[in-house]
Amino acid sequence: MNLHEYPTDHRGLAVLDLDECMRRLRQVVVGRIVFVHDGEPVVLPVNHGVDGNDIVFRTTWGAKLQQAQHAHLVAFEVDDFDEQLRRGWSVLVTGKAEVVYDENEIDRLERLGVHSWAKVLDPVFWVRIRPQQVSGREIRTD
Amino acid sequence: MNLHEYPTDHRGLAVLDLDECMRRLRQVVVGRIVFVHDGEPVVLPVNHGVDGNDIVFRTTWGAKLQQAQHAHLVAFEVDDFDEQLRRGWSVLVTGKAEVVYDENEIDRLERLGVHSWAKVLDPVFWVRIRPQQVSGREIRTD
Repeated sequence: MNLHEYPTDHRGLAVLDLDECMRRLRQVVVGRIVFVHDGEPVVLPVNHGVDGNDIVFRTTWGAKLQQAQHAHLVAFEVDDFDEQLRRGWSVLVTGKAEVVYDENEIDRLERLGVHSWAKVLDPVFWVRIRPQQVSGREIRTD
Repeated sequence: MNLHEYPTDHRGLAVLDLDECMRRLRQVVVGRIVFVHDGEPVVLPVNHGVDGNDIVFRTTWGAKLQQAQHAHLVAFEVDDFDEQLRRGWSVLVTGKAEVVYDENEIDRLERLGVHSWAKVLDPVFWVRIRPQQVSGREIRTD
């Protein structure tokens, strides 16, 4: 679908549909997980994959894992901006995080091709975000 | 300071010092503001500037402004990733947001060269984030 065919919001941004949002979530390999930890908003980049419509990523002991263990509502964002052209887009997902414990499922996720750039520390857990809301916006340049 | 001179954290990521974090906050023109709205984590890209050590951006009526009107704790993130080289960095700021009402201050911020790519709707407010915590990490490639 051409960008010009998307409806616009009150700020003049193109409103991306769900298929396009999912396509863009698959297209980039780094996203940002956002959650509330000890009452404070936290945002951390992660290498992610898309499994069906779910966002998946690896993590180890820490605040990201705690969110998933307690099935907290988290947000996940991907975007891409071109400073020269002053254009860009972003996709925001909100959903509950959960740790993947099923071994067959873990085997499948390991084959998704999600590579952690940072050193991976043991033990490693897979976290799945099941989207409840997905929205995307793109800045039109004309 | 060369990246190799920075200490590393337990994941092997270089820990950027405050000067370097501020330099990178100035270097990019789009960041992501993160806050809690109606109990849900929200992350939205904004064109930002740096005024002293504060993050500043324009906004209009909406959730971002509400955060500032209530002096809520928000987070702000900038990053840059190179998918081919599998390297990248991110800087995270946490601080209280506040609306700028002083006219002299607004005049000064207007001259910072912060350009909103999206259509700017009236009325426009400047929001300032006064950092309480600033941290930055970079993935070493060797």
